[in-house]
Amino acid sequence: MQRFFVKEDAINGDTVRLEGDDARHISFSLRMKRGDRISVCAPDGSLYTCRLTAFGEGYVEAAVEERTVCDTEPPYRVRLYQALPKGDKLETIVQKAVECGVYEIVPFESRNCIAKTGNNPEKKLERLNRIAAEAAKQCGRGIQPRVLPTRSFRQMLREAGEAALPLFCYEGEGTVPLGALLKGCEREIAVVVGSEGGFTPEEVEEARTAGLRLCGLGPRILRCETAPVFVLSCLSLSRELTPHEA
Amino acid sequence: MQRFFVKEDAINGDTVRLEGDDARHISFSLRMKRGDRISVCAPDGSLYTCRLTAFGEGYVEAAVEERTVCDTEPPYRVRLYQALPKGDKLETIVQKAVECGVYEIVPFESRNCIAKTGNNPEKKLERLNRIAAEAAKQCGRGIQPRVLPTRSFRQMLREAGEAALPLFCYEGEGTVPLGALLKGCEREIAVVVGSEGGFTPEEVEEARTAGLRLCGLGPRILRCETAPVFVLSCLSLSRELTPHEA
Repeated sequence: MQRFFVKEDAINGDTVRLEGDDARHISFSLRMKRGDRISVCAPDGSLYTCRLTAFGEGYVEAAVEERTVCDTEPPYRVRLYQALPKGDKLETIVQKAVECGVYEIVPFESRNCIAKTGNNPEKKLERLNRIAAEAAKQCGRGIQPRVLPTRSFRQMLREAGEAALPLFCYEGEGTVPLGALLKGCEREIAVVVGSEGGFTPEEVEEARTAGLRLCGLGPRILRCETAPVFVLSCLSLSRELTPHEA
Repeated sequence: MQRFFVKEDAINGDTVRLEGDDARHISFSLRMKRGDRISVCAPDGSLYTCRLTAFGEGYVEAAVEERTVCDTEPPYRVRLYQALPKGDKLETIVQKAVECGVYEIVPFESRNCIAKTGNNPEKKLERLNRIAAEAAKQCGRGIQPRVLPTRSFRQMLREAGEAALPLFCYEGEGTVPLGALLKGCEREIAVVVGSEGGFTPEEVEEARTAGLRLCGLGPRILRCETAPVFVLSCLSLSRELTPHEA
């Protein structure tokens, strides 16, 4: 069933109102008719099965038939802090990270980033959020993960440091293997991944001082677009896919 | 240090002889000189540190200074059986799978594949093997994973079924979660991943009958190019990155 993400105020009792792109998508691309069924995901994790009831100028209304809890969301929230990579790699990272269960994606600038935020950051951000939304629909997420505006390295450290488990992925010395760091059951997790050029020794030291956990991803050197998928997959194995004793 | 993969017969006592592309790469692209150092990986997992000693017509010779064992190879061998995806996705899959520790990659045709082997399969295979070789150098593998010629679905089942742990990734009913299947310590693992169109119910039944384990990758639906990275990352977490009690 086609899935749509709405804001809280779109749901009013047993009626859901879809506007803008969603309404156009239903009416013109999907050519759906009154009586057809859709899935609607609310920000609180509710999943509504609805039947289309009315088509108006720029909106569509649907009646709620059933309300369940969406069971495709991970039992943790990962904020991925990604140093700006070259070219359109950030788009690939956003798409794959959403599939693998990321909660939010926060790009940041570091010393060795070749890419910079550049002109028209609003337009770029809008495009990234559109990619996230598409990926969320396609893979069956219960929420629509957001991409947030680019942070400075310092800002990133401050925010990431507030997570219960702040992981700073690093291929150098002095790290703890990811597997050892995933033994707990923290709900709020930050994952910091560098760009092609990696981090400078000063940045690594700053991260350590800010309380982040230097985290090793194994014996091979992963590309900056592979590392986020790697970490999110590992998290999924350790918390979603492996039956643990209570 | 720049890394090269050689066949066994390239090593003769304390002398290594590099020819073809490797020799050209050293002489012309890297402009290395006598006395410069390179790493040479042999098929048996040995890692040689060598110093360049001679430049000839179409070859380069180097003297072995130290021999160690390469420690970037996983303690297991994964053969990834990948149903032919659309466009150039197979190239991305090969690159990422090599980074994540795959041993061999075997494309195969299934009912819902839109892509077919097509004309000039030898040329395509050569290109995929070049991508694998590049990725292996870049991420520091100790071997050069190979891409093998495309198999039929039946052929794939026969070969995959011989692995100690044959995983058939499937998003439908009747699967066991990946986490439960990775509890053992099998060395020879087959991972079968579908194309965009997935598998038909008949193919799933055939796989089950052939002794493959239907394996679930979690609550979200992964794209065909994400699934191999997901499984290989999970394997790495369960066997390389998590300290286990003996």
